[in-house]
Amino acid sequence: MIANSVSTLSVDALVFDAYGTLFDVQSVATLAERLFSGQGAALSQLWRSKQLEYTWLQSLMLSPMQRREDFAAITAHALDFSAEALHLPLTAAARHRLLDAYLDLSPYPDVATVLVTLAPMPRLVLSNGTREMLELLAATTGLASHLDAVLSVDAAGVYKPSPRVYQLAVDHLKLLPPRIGFVSSNGWDAVGAKAFGLTVIWVNRAGAPLERHGPKPDAIIGSLAELPALVGRA
Amino acid sequence: MIANSVSTLSVDALVFDAYGTLFDVQSVATLAERLFSGQGAALSQLWRSKQLEYTWLQSLMLSPMQRREDFAAITAHALDFSAEALHLPLTAAARHRLLDAYLDLSPYPDVATVLVTLAPMPRLVLSNGTREMLELLAATTGLASHLDAVLSVDAAGVYKPSPRVYQLAVDHLKLLPPRIGFVSSNGWDAVGAKAFGLTVIWVNRAGAPLERHGPKPDAIIGSLAELPALVGRA
Repeated sequence: MIANSVSTLSVDALVFDAYGTLFDVQSVATLAERLFSGQGAALSQLWRSKQLEYTWLQSLMLSPMQRREDFAAITAHALDFSAEALHLPLTAAARHRLLDAYLDLSPYPDVATVLVTLAPMPRLVLSNGTREMLELLAATTGLASHLDAVLSVDAAGVYKPSPRVYQLAVDHLKLLPPRIGFVSSNGWDAVGAKAFGLTVIWVNRAGAPLERHGPKPDAIIGSLAELPALVGRA
Repeated sequence: MIANSVSTLSVDALVFDAYGTLFDVQSVATLAERLFSGQGAALSQLWRSKQLEYTWLQSLMLSPMQRREDFAAITAHALDFSAEALHLPLTAAARHRLLDAYLDLSPYPDVATVLVTLAPMPRLVLSNGTREMLELLAATTGLASHLDAVLSVDAAGVYKPSPRVYQLAVDHLKLLPPRIGFVSSNGWDAVGAKAFGLTVIWVNRAGAPLERHGPKPDAIIGSLAELPALVGRA
């Protein structure tokens, strides 16, 4: 669905969110269920919520002189809180395995094909993950060869949806914001990118409601497979 | 519980969070259950989560030239999202009643007695609510007569836990941050106030885990009734 009446979006580059957009985090939930039978879904959902919440809160509460923690540390803190909240006995070994699961995600099945189809348009990643986490993911999944750059919020010192994060894509690409297509499956990320001024495509795989706290995306698609046609590269 | 080894905290004024700290939001859940039998808890929990999430996201994503929405608007948007996410048919009348419920909350039973006991120490409210919402609540519950001031984030143009919000209490009281006791039942609010430099008392009525994304509170109490002894005014 395109929000306005044109049939394609005119952009000169595409910037992708990582977690939940290119990479499927379902394997984390599967491992959580193996470790805590009957509680895997509850743990992985609370963990993901707290992970995001901590990125937003640290970004908002800290003065410029205070340093935020990186995404690996935030992810570990969020896991510790979630296990305690659900009264799950988190051994050091289980904790280690769950945190490692975030470093070993699979791309959604259509990702590699879509990235190849989109070439030679520049294709970037812009994610909350640390540079280390992201480079490891891109290398082990083989996606690195289809990506022109992997940008981490580390370079901005703050998390999404701060405008300083989306500015990283503008600085790297040297394009005006509306010429950059930003692709995310996270509704709040789509809203933040649109408020900044990027052209936004929300990948709404789960049929979630539209977020109500900011501007709507320029287009909504059900899977990445719809992306090439949307930007005139089918 | 006092986090360090002293038996009382030395502060010259007390600043209270409103929603969930002085005012019990349970009546909102009760009404939600009357309107949507079997779904009241799910609706009120998701509504509260989205309400907070929207305050954080708007505070973080907007440039200084963009205006955040006030807490009444955020609260309405969060309700609309939550009802749609849970597939609940929200009529205009039900929506109106639920939003009105936020204007007609009861204080926890011990609040008035505690505020009286704490006098003549200055006692303030500092809340995400709009000035209008807060003044109405203070007036209708009779708490206004036990409060020296009611401060809304409206004066800062941003939501908690931005340091600019906690600065409002410093500016009003003309005290150094550690001389101000900040009382909140919201763990994330307690962390934000402590990162800013206030002396923080977390009212942990539900026995929730400690948040992991920032500094610990100076003291943790199970109900407001423990507060006067904690600050040497029993």
